[in-house]
Amino acid sequence: MIKTIFWKNNSVVLIDQNALPLFERHVVCKSYKEVISAIKDLTVRGAPAIGVAAAMGVALGAFHLPSLSPEKFHKQLLTIFEEIAKSRPTARNLFWALERMKQAVDRKNNEKQNKLVKELIDEAKRICAEDIEINRKMGRFGSKLLADGDNILTHCNAGALATAGYGTALGVIRAAREKGKKLHIYVDETRPVLQGARLTTWELKKEKIPFTLITDNMAGFLMSQEKIDKIIVGADRIAANGDTANKIGTYSLAVLAQVHHVPFYIAAPMSTIDISLKSGKAIPIEERKSEEVTNFKGIRSAPAGTKVYNPAFDITPAEFITAIITEKGILTKPYSSSISLMHKEDKPS
Amino acid sequence: MIKTIFWKNNSVVLIDQNALPLFERHVVCKSYKEVISAIKDLTVRGAPAIGVAAAMGVALGAFHLPSLSPEKFHKQLLTIFEEIAKSRPTARNLFWALERMKQAVDRKNNEKQNKLVKELIDEAKRICAEDIEINRKMGRFGSKLLADGDNILTHCNAGALATAGYGTALGVIRAAREKGKKLHIYVDETRPVLQGARLTTWELKKEKIPFTLITDNMAGFLMSQEKIDKIIVGADRIAANGDTANKIGTYSLAVLAQVHHVPFYIAAPMSTIDISLKSGKAIPIEERKSEEVTNFKGIRSAPAGTKVYNPAFDITPAEFITAIITEKGILTKPYSSSISLMHKEDKPS
Repeated sequence: MIKTIFWKNNSVVLIDQNALPLFERHVVCKSYKEVISAIKDLTVRGAPAIGVAAAMGVALGAFHLPSLSPEKFHKQLLTIFEEIAKSRPTARNLFWALERMKQAVDRKNNEKQNKLVKELIDEAKRICAEDIEINRKMGRFGSKLLADGDNILTHCNAGALATAGYGTALGVIRAAREKGKKLHIYVDETRPVLQGARLTTWELKKEKIPFTLITDNMAGFLMSQEKIDKIIVGADRIAANGDTANKIGTYSLAVLAQVHHVPFYIAAPMSTIDISLKSGKAIPIEERKSEEVTNFKGIRSAPAGTKVYNPAFDITPAEFITAIITEKGILTKPYSSSISLMHKEDKPS
Repeated sequence: MIKTIFWKNNSVVLIDQNALPLFERHVVCKSYKEVISAIKDLTVRGAPAIGVAAAMGVALGAFHLPSLSPEKFHKQLLTIFEEIAKSRPTARNLFWALERMKQAVDRKNNEKQNKLVKELIDEAKRICAEDIEINRKMGRFGSKLLADGDNILTHCNAGALATAGYGTALGVIRAAREKGKKLHIYVDETRPVLQGARLTTWELKKEKIPFTLITDNMAGFLMSQEKIDKIIVGADRIAANGDTANKIGTYSLAVLAQVHHVPFYIAAPMSTIDISLKSGKAIPIEERKSEEVTNFKGIRSAPAGTKVYNPAFDITPAEFITAIITEKGILTKPYSSSISLMHKEDKPS
């Protein structure tokens, strides 16, 4: 089993996703600032994994604070929360995890510093363990949508590496395989950072799930040749109406899927849904540095000084999404009602 | 002016398109086998440029034949034609150029070997010179379709480098600029070989035409943001009904263009049209080696043993094409009639 992120010896250990698939190695973060830089430089990526990393970052930051007056301690803690919140803007799960950690602070507000720190570490570990459970539940629901013999296209990496383990989109594929369904996966390489070529292939190879790697611009042609039965991707943030931010290229796939009558599924935990945003228009889209497009491992492909537009995500309007697979069940249109209903059920009473 | 290919000192000189944009250097082919390998390894690419290279390859092969009996000379010549014909399968211009060279052979069939060789060299030079003229004519017609201030998306490289000079799709852009229209170009990087990132950017930079590089999977999102006014691409082969083979990814762009009401233009000389093929289904699609997808400049991005599907081209059905810009004028739907009519006019009476 792939362990993307875990707490060990009062450090946060991450599988180094920039080194995969050439090297399997781990990065040990000994301070919350190291966690922030691991989130920023994509050592850890994928919305649910970013959420877990953020929670563990808070716990690590709190753990390393000196003994302080309650007032000063809380002030320092606030700074840690704020810095982590600024690490990446799009993934909802980051902010959701920080909210969970704030609730843990509130629960133990009157306790001694060491008790509060322990609670934060425990809460971060719980968020990590729960994430795997959530993915398994999602897999059980989603696997019903896949048929034996299906050719599935996926984009980016929404696998164990994008979560604490098991995966969202790849979790659904894993669950269907566990039920004995034979599947073949087309893997979009996913420019510019190649999460498909580097990470999804690595996971599928480990699990002996047959796959074929393609460049992103081949997907439409494959659909026209009826080579793709279904598309499943993850999500970084879902608005209250079902509009979904996910890795750049998702929107094009969803439009092409609709034209070719290919079902297009999103697999994401409830923590990816941002009920506070009416539509996808309000989702902040991160723009990343141009070198991601103009260079590969330090080798330049475009002329010096080339101007680049590099949005890391795009927004897929809800109308293009056949269903959203969550740990609470499968949401269908109209998403404003199904999301609102599921969100209410999700709240502890 | 960029000189993609020329005849010099009884050699075929090619700008090395694998080295661009990092190095500007030329490859000198001293035998027709070297021309074949330059076509195969993409030192020279782009349908019209492949056509010129094929013609010059024949001339070079004929030039280096020893003095032979007419019968043996023609047999050797036939081998040269056959080998060059097998270099790449999709670009119509390659076969068109070989047919032109065969007609030159037929014209001088009864002449002495050295006269026939001279005619072949002259014919190859004519094909080269004519190609630039054809592109300029295409540019004059096509430039009328572009408006001052347009944001144009192009895919792959259909520029001076894809032709003897000036370009097809980029020729239209050059012509519009010469008429004083201000344009901004979005350049698809064009995986897997990155002709957009490496070659189109290099040409546009040289001409000081403003451009922005994007990954292929961003184009749909940009269309949804209304950032793209028109799309122009080249073609490798056009069937009698207008179905068009072009660089992989073109089909997805054309579908996305239709959904977003963005005009989608093909710019190609009449020599790209294959009147013998009823529809795009009959166009042979080259599949290239998996390393183009799994490696960049020798650095692997995907795990060892990764299975790849790597079609170099796709087929865009005629229904998605707003117009086809040729040197004879602008063809519109229904293409079976407009192509048939133009083809008859194109034949010398």
